[in-house]
Order: sequence, then C-alpha cells, then structure tokens
Amino acid sequence: MNWLLLCRMLGLLAMLVGGSMVFSLPWAFPEFGQTTEFEYRGFWGLISAIAVSLGVGGTLSFLGRKEHGTILRKEALAIVGLGWILAGLLGALPYLFSGTMRDAETPMSIPDAVFESVSGFTTTGASVLTELEDPAEIPRCIMFWRCFTNWLGGMGIIVLFVAILGQLGAAGKALMRREVPGPISESVRPRVREQAIVMWVIYVVLSAILVGILQLEGMSGVQKMDIYNSLCHTFATMATGGFSTLNGSVGGFNSPLIEYTIIVFMIAAGTNFTLFYLVTLHRRNPLYGEGWWGRFKPLFSDVEFRAYLTIIFVATIILTMDLLWIEHYQSVLDAFRNASFQVVSIMTTTGFGTDDFDRWSEFSKGLLLLLMFVGGCAGSTGGGLKVIRFVLFAKIMRLEIEQAFRPNVVRPLRIAGVTLDNSLRHDVLVYFCLILTIYIGSWMLLAAIETDDQWRDTTLTVEEMADEHRPHRAEKLLDCASAVAATLNNIGPGVGVVGPTENYAAFSGAGKLLLTVCMLLGRLELFAILVLFVPSFWKSH
Amino acid sequence: MNWLLLCRMLGLLAMLVGGSMVFSLPWAFPEFGQTTEFEYRGFWGLISAIAVSLGVGGTLSFLGRKEHGTILRKEALAIVGLGWILAGLLGALPYLFSGTMRDAETPMSIPDAVFESVSGFTTTGASVLTELEDPAEIPRCIMFWRCFTNWLGGMGIIVLFVAILGQLGAAGKALMRREVPGPISESVRPRVREQAIVMWVIYVVLSAILVGILQLEGMSGVQKMDIYNSLCHTFATMATGGFSTLNGSVGGFNSPLIEYTIIVFMIAAGTNFTLFYLVTLHRRNPLYGEGWWGRFKPLFSDVEFRAYLTIIFVATIILTMDLLWIEHYQSVLDAFRNASFQVVSIMTTTGFGTDDFDRWSEFSKGLLLLLMFVGGCAGSTGGGLKVIRFVLFAKIMRLEIEQAFRPNVVRPLRIAGVTLDNSLRHDVLVYFCLILTIYIGSWMLLAAIETDDQWRDTTLTVEEMADEHRPHRAEKLLDCASAVAATLNNIGPGVGVVGPTENYAAFSGAGKLLLTVCMLLGRLELFAILVLFVPSFWKSH
Ligand SMILES: [K+]
Ligand SMILES: [K+]
Repeated sequence: MNWLLLCRMLGLLAMLVGGSMVFSLPWAFPEFGQTTEFEYRGFWGLISAIAVSLGVGGTLSFLGRKEHGTILRKEALAIVGLGWILAGLLGALPYLFSGTMRDAETPMSIPDAVFESVSGFTTTGASVLTELEDPAEIPRCIMFWRCFTNWLGGMGIIVLFVAILGQLGAAGKALMRREVPGPISESVRPRVREQAIVMWVIYVVLSAILVGILQLEGMSGVQKMDIYNSLCHTFATMATGGFSTLNGSVGGFNSPLIEYTIIVFMIAAGTNFTLFYLVTLHRRNPLYGEGWWGRFKPLFSDVEFRAYLTIIFVATIILTMDLLWIEHYQSVLDAFRNASFQVVSIMTTTGFGTDDFDRWSEFSKGLLLLLMFVGGCAGSTGGGLKVIRFVLFAKIMRLEIEQAFRPNVVRPLRIAGVTLDNSLRHDVLVYFCLILTIYIGSWMLLAAIETDDQWRDTTLTVEEMADEHRPHRAEKLLDCASAVAATLNNIGPGVGVVGPTENYAAFSGAGKLLLTVCMLLGRLELFAILVLFVPSFWKSH
Repeated sequence: MNWLLLCRMLGLLAMLVGGSMVFSLPWAFPEFGQTTEFEYRGFWGLISAIAVSLGVGGTLSFLGRKEHGTILRKEALAIVGLGWILAGLLGALPYLFSGTMRDAETPMSIPDAVFESVSGFTTTGASVLTELEDPAEIPRCIMFWRCFTNWLGGMGIIVLFVAILGQLGAAGKALMRREVPGPISESVRPRVREQAIVMWVIYVVLSAILVGILQLEGMSGVQKMDIYNSLCHTFATMATGGFSTLNGSVGGFNSPLIEYTIIVFMIAAGTNFTLFYLVTLHRRNPLYGEGWWGRFKPLFSDVEFRAYLTIIFVATIILTMDLLWIEHYQSVLDAFRNASFQVVSIMTTTGFGTDDFDRWSEFSKGLLLLLMFVGGCAGSTGGGLKVIRFVLFAKIMRLEIEQAFRPNVVRPLRIAGVTLDNSLRHDVLVYFCLILTIYIGSWMLLAAIETDDQWRDTTLTVEEMADEHRPHRAEKLLDCASAVAATLNNIGPGVGVVGPTENYAAFSGAGKLLLTVCMLLGRLELFAILVLFVPSFWKSH
C-alpha cells in the first residue's frame, strides 16, 4: 500500500468536502428568508467544520506532497473506501458543532451525526431527526447541508464509477461491464474521463431544470415551495437521496403537481446516465435512423431501461388495485397517485413518501420490500442491486434449469443479441450471494445488538404485559430486517419501526454504526469496503 | 419423453406405496395395545387405500408392460419428480378414507391430506392435525402410517440419490460431487448400486438400534414409551422427519434420557451415511493407520462433518447463554438440554420440539431461522441446503473478495487439499441463488394468498380494532416467511403462527398446496420438480 499517495488523495477530498460546506452558509442569514434571526449556532458550527476539514485536508496533503506515483488497483480501492468514510466523518461535524437536536430534548450524539452524514453522502436518506421543520432544533443552514450531502453523494458516485473505477475494474467492474451488452457502447467506452465530465454536466443540467420547474410550480400557488425547498428537494430527487425539509416528506406539499413532477425526475435519476448522453449529446448512430424516433431509440431499445419501466408499471398497477381492494383509498386517482409515487420512490431508492405505507396491506409491504432490492439502473444515482443484475439473473436461472435435463447443450448468455462473457455470469451470482450473506449477517447482528424490551414495552396489551413468559414481539425481527434492507440498498425508510413516518433514532449507538456500514457497503457495491477488512490488502506490494 | 417407461416405473412405485401400508394394519386391533376397540374406520380406510394404490399401480404397469428401454436423464428426472408427487397423493388416501379429523369438528380436506402425506414422505413433519393423542380423531393405525411415511421418505431419498441420480447427474450432481473432495472417495464411487444397498442396511440397522434403546428406556420407567411409540419416534428421528405421536412432541415424554438419546441419533441421521460405511463396513484404508483412531479417522477428518459438529456446538453454547440471560431457565442444565435439543432438531431439520421456542428471545428465534437453512450433511436424511454447500460458499466468497484487489491471482477452490472443479463453484452459487429466488417468490405468493384478516383479528388490542385505518400485523409477513422456510428446508415447525406449539391448519387450501410444492422442491433439491414446469422438457427426443 502506498500510504503517502493515499494521504495526498484523501487530503484533497477532505478539502473538497470542507469547501462544499460554504454553500450552506448563506441560509443562516435572515436575508435569505428561511430564518427570522441570524442562526448563530448553525453559522459558527459550519465555520468550525470548514476549518477542521481544511485543516485535516491540508495536513494529509502536506504529508503526501512528494508522492506522485500512479494509482494502482489497491490504492484506488483504498481511496474509494476510506474516502467515503472520511467524507462521512467530516460531514458529521456541522451537526455536532452546531448542536443540532435529534428531538426537543436530545442533542445529536456522535453516532447520530455520523449516521446522518453517511446517510446523506450515500444518498440513503435515513434519518435520526424527528422535527425537521423547527429551526430551533435544526438550523436552516444545517438543514441545507444535509440535503446538499445527498447531491454531492449522488454526483460523487457517478464520477467515481465512471472516471476512477471504470479504468480499474474491481468494484466498478460489474457496473462498467454492463455497457458491453448494448451494441451502442463501443463508441462510448474508450474515453472514460470525457464521459465522466459529460455525465456530470447532465446531472447538473437535469438538476437545474428540476429547480426551475419546482420554482414555477411554487410561484403558481404551491405552499412552501420557495427557492430553498426547490433546491433541497432537487438535491434529494436527482441523487435519489430522499432527504426532505418537511416532516411529511413530499406529501407535505399536498400537491399532485409536485408529486408527479418528482415522479418523473426520480425515474430519470434512476436511469443509466449514459443513455441521456447517447440521446442528447452523442453523435447520431446511423443505425437508428433519422428523426425523433431515431434519437430516442437508444433509450427504448436498452434492455435494462425497458425492464426498469416495466417493473415500475406492473408494480404500480398491482399496488393501485390492492389499495382499492383494502379500501385504503376510495378514488382510483388517489390510489394511482400514491401507488405510483411510492413504487417509484422505493424502486429508484429515493425514499420520499406521500403516504404511510406501513398502513397498507401486508402483501403491499412485502412487495415494496422486494422492490427495495431491485433498485435503479446501473450508471444511475440509484442504489439497490440494479435492474440489469436482475435481468441477467433471470436469464441465468432459466439456462440453469434447462441444463438440468440437457447437460450437453450449453447455451451462451445473451442480451440484446450480444453474447456475454462467462465471467460476467459468475460475477452476477457472486454479487447476489455476497449481498445475501451481508444482508443476513447484518440482520442477525442488529437483532443481537438491540434489546427486545424496546419493542416489547410499547406495543403489548396489558394482559400480555402481566404474563411473565410474555411472547416477544415478532416485529423486532421484521423491523431489523427492513432497517438493514433500507440502508444496504440506500433507500432510507423501510417498513415497521423505520417506516415512512418513523425514523432511526430508536436504534442504539452500535446499531446505528452497523447500519452506517451497511449504507457504505451498498453504495460502493461491497468490494471497496470489504477489502478494507482483509489483512493482506494492507500489506505492501 | 418415453411415456410408457414412465408408466411402468410409476406403476411399480404405486404398488410399493400400497404394499407398505400393510404394516399399519395391525395397530387397528386392540390386541396390539394401542386401542381399546377395533378401529373400524382406520382399518377399512387403509384397506381401501391399499386397494386403490395397487389398482393404480397395476394399471400403470400394465400400460407400460412392453417397454424395457433404458432410463435416460430426462426419464430419470420425470420418474423422480412425478414419483414423489404420486407417492404423496396415494399416501393421502388413508387419511381421507378413514375420515381422520383435523380437529374436534373438522374432517381433513383433500388439501389437508395431501399436505400431511407429502409432509411425511418429504420428511418435513409439518402437520395440520391438532389433537394427536385422541384415537377418536386420529385412529392409531393411521397415526402409525403417518410416522411410517417419514421413514419411507428418509430411506427413499438416500436410495434415490445414490442409486438413480448418482449415475445420471442433474439433481444428484451436486450431492454426488460432494464425494470428490475427500481423498477417500475414489474407492467408494464406482459401484453405486452396491453402495445404495449398504446405506440402506446402515439405515435399517441404526433404526433397529434406536428402537432397542428407546424400548429399554421405556421399560426402565419412562411413561408412554412402548413399542408403538419407540417405532414411531425412531421413524421420525432416523428420517429427520419429526412426526410425533404426542401433542408435546418429544417433550411429552418429559425425560432427559429420551431427549439425549434422540439428540445423538438426530446427529447421526444428519451425517453423511457414506461416512458410516467407511467407518464400519469398508475395508480399512492403510493411510489412516491401525486401531480405533484409524477406524474413526475418516469420520473426523471429513470437512463437512467437522463443520456440522462445530455449528451445532457453537449454536448450542450461544443459545444456552441467551436462555440464561433472558432468564427463561434458571438452571444451566435445563438451558443446555433445551438449547441443544432445539439446535440439533432444527439443524438436522428433524423438527422435534421440547420447548416452545416462540417464547425465546427474538435473537434466538432469528438464529434458529438461520440454522433451518444450513441443514444436515449431504448424503444424510436431513434437508436444508446442506453443510457442505455452506463450507464451499464461505470459501468461494473469501476468494472473491481477495480477487477484488488481486485480479490476476486466480486461486483454485480447495477442500481437504483437493482442488475442486470450477463448475462445482458455479453449481453452488446457482443453487444458493435458485433457493433464494424460490424462497422469496413463495413467500410473496403465500402473503398474497392468505388474507390479512386472519392475523389481524385475533391479536389486536381493542383500541387498535376500533381504529378504522388500523395497522396490519407485521407478524403475517414473518409467519409466511417462516412457514416457507420450514417447508422448503423440510423442517416442519417454524416460528410464529407455525411455531412448535402451533400447526399449519390455519392456512388456506391454496396456501397448503403452495407449501406442499415447497416441501417437494426442497426434498428433491429443486431440479427434479422445476423441470416439470418447463414445456420443452416434455417434448420428445
Ligand atoms: K435514498
Ligand atoms: K423434518
């Protein structure tokens, strides 16, 4: 391991994080309309956090100033893994220094702040905060920082995968390989760095468009939708982050217009950004023909994008019918609006809410729990296992069943007419198995860390309480399962105790730390974090 | 597909099943001490079932009498898949014809009877019966048939895998390949049929020994342990079936002696029977040296057997400590006895109970839920995913993580010093992924089939009932998850509504059918059942 190189790169990152905090400062002033008086705690908290970040960054950079070696695979993995951990730690400083309150009585502890910060950067959107709308508990400038971490993380992941990992394999391997299937990819791949810049531009442009639309809708009469909320909700939408400034999340605007707007942009955020590049900036492929159809053909001929839209569509229809069936809604329109919003929000791993789906039927909850694992498309800001992996997985399973009775007929794995490498087949299976192992292991660990009493006391009947050998609430297992699923897939809200109307405050410090690790594992697609625990990884070349 | 050959083989099987019902007849007579008067319904129910089975078998054999072609892979798979389904259907007839009662008011429906019968043959041991000890509801001769199906299924599976599938690959492939790792296997493999006979002998001898021991313990003072109960509990133990004749399962004897005896034999039943062959009948391998140590070395040098014992040991220690911690037991001995019994019972997929573990801590329940998936050793009568697959899985995952930062160092997969084939690596991953897919799919399907009301009504508080938008009980999801896990892994009891003190009667007919399919899928290691659903499987060569 080239430690000096590591220091130099991490130092650079620390300074970047410190610098990005500057954008949150204006909102501490009453002039910007979010607070009636100058937010003393918030402002100086941010200033201190900036100072510490720059100090740490400067020191690290100074240590590694003489090292200009090339970044090899090991160093790249270490930079990614440690970099995200460092960003998470520095990002927690504004919460701590400003004395932000978890609820009316409790200031945020160190695990709380790290949880909230990593949740922001990983675009998970899980929160320990209770009262989002009260500036006395959470200064508005700190609130802005919280949403801004979403946006930085969303952009970070794109640049990371495309620019750094794309060249180096490993963690980015499965994701980048994904481009092989399409017949259109060859022209895109060679110039990875250029592509990263283009995708960054697309991300910024889409964000700007969404801010504009939300602003317009705000001006045309939607309460609370000012520039501050436009920005914050754009950050959370485009990053599929899900941090909102309102207690009722996007439902707090109480506006179908806003909801449908955000649905569209969530779908866009969960789409492979390469496709936008192909549709807009890339020179036309003559194969696709002329006119509008020729321009959008790359989008709708993409196997993953089609599967992604199909899953959203089918799940929405099923949920709409189920909501009408259990008479949760009387009107078809209401049912459709809420079903589609929740499906898109969960599937793209954004995690916004407009209704408490913990009150929906068990089947619906189960279906949403499954959608959590599907996630967005590869190359998007969305989390989860990614749609393309499920497409490949389904094809592999079908081939395997056929092989049981036709052992000598070995069919290749094909997508859109292109034969895929056998090692990709192996990688997909390994990824599913690893995620499963980590999911189950974390679930059990969380169930062991948290005490049963926390679940037992609040929900039992008097008779059950009196029973000495009272049954434990089975919800604990389900709640832990859903908390791990929601963090590992970078979604945010789950079902049960971490449902859309609850938060993660009730978990113990150790439990929050475990969930924080899950967020990082999910965001970096496992390997960049897992290797950090392998002793031989740290040995020198 | 060679249909005539299929008919001939299935006809043979039907006659075998019909013939095996004869052994249950004696217990209908008061002379055998289980009933005070002649069990009219039970006796004639069995006679009718025998008649129908022989009739069906005779007809099928007659249809295929002229066909003497060789059994190819496709036919073998079809015989296995359809054969188990046919045995399950015929085995249900005694319950139906005797008018056996599910509870005091309800006679068994067709889905009930098929569920109970398939549960017996697949050695699952899941039951829809409520009052096991009342001859008025369940004639003793029918009760004997129920336990006997366990034993037949346990033996059937060994013979099946070794004698038929071992020669043909496919479903038996992964299991038989398992023998490659050990350096001792080469001498065992070539003569598959001989080995099948030896294993059958071992099964019978071990059963006879257990009957003898239980009889002795019965004579030395254990209540209720007569020859009938010795036989029935031996059937369920050696097959890892778990059907008991007592409402309190093995706990009903209230005897530590019986419990520890059954623990030892459950462990034996979950061990690869090839190891017994090597230890007892096989000519000595000079490699292992002389004396007792030389004789038992094959057993304790087996990687899978060592992992199997280690998991049992560690899980028992953890559960013992947890039971003392939550003060469920005051005495260390009681805690150890119940922890070890439950761990061994679940891990070997027997499913006997001595305590209601639904009252243990959530963590303990979660741990037991995980052990369900581990299961016994390959080549045993136990279900689950098998220990060897987890051993291989753990090794594969470790290699994959290392590959993330050392892509050019390709290490082979080794067990006990022997390098394994790459396709085995692939097979293990495929099996995990397939089981996972089927598990989740069945879980969701079951949650969709069963109504929420069934869970809601009985357990809510008055206030919650009054709430129009009352929350649904999250237990439904967990109960469905545990029912699918318990049937897919051939265990029997799960946690929640199907916990050790409950049964499967509450599920709907469609739900029972789904769980029946899960039992078959688990027992036949997926492929022999899955191929039946592939249209091209049925096309002619
Ligand atoms: K999210
Ligand atoms: K069983």
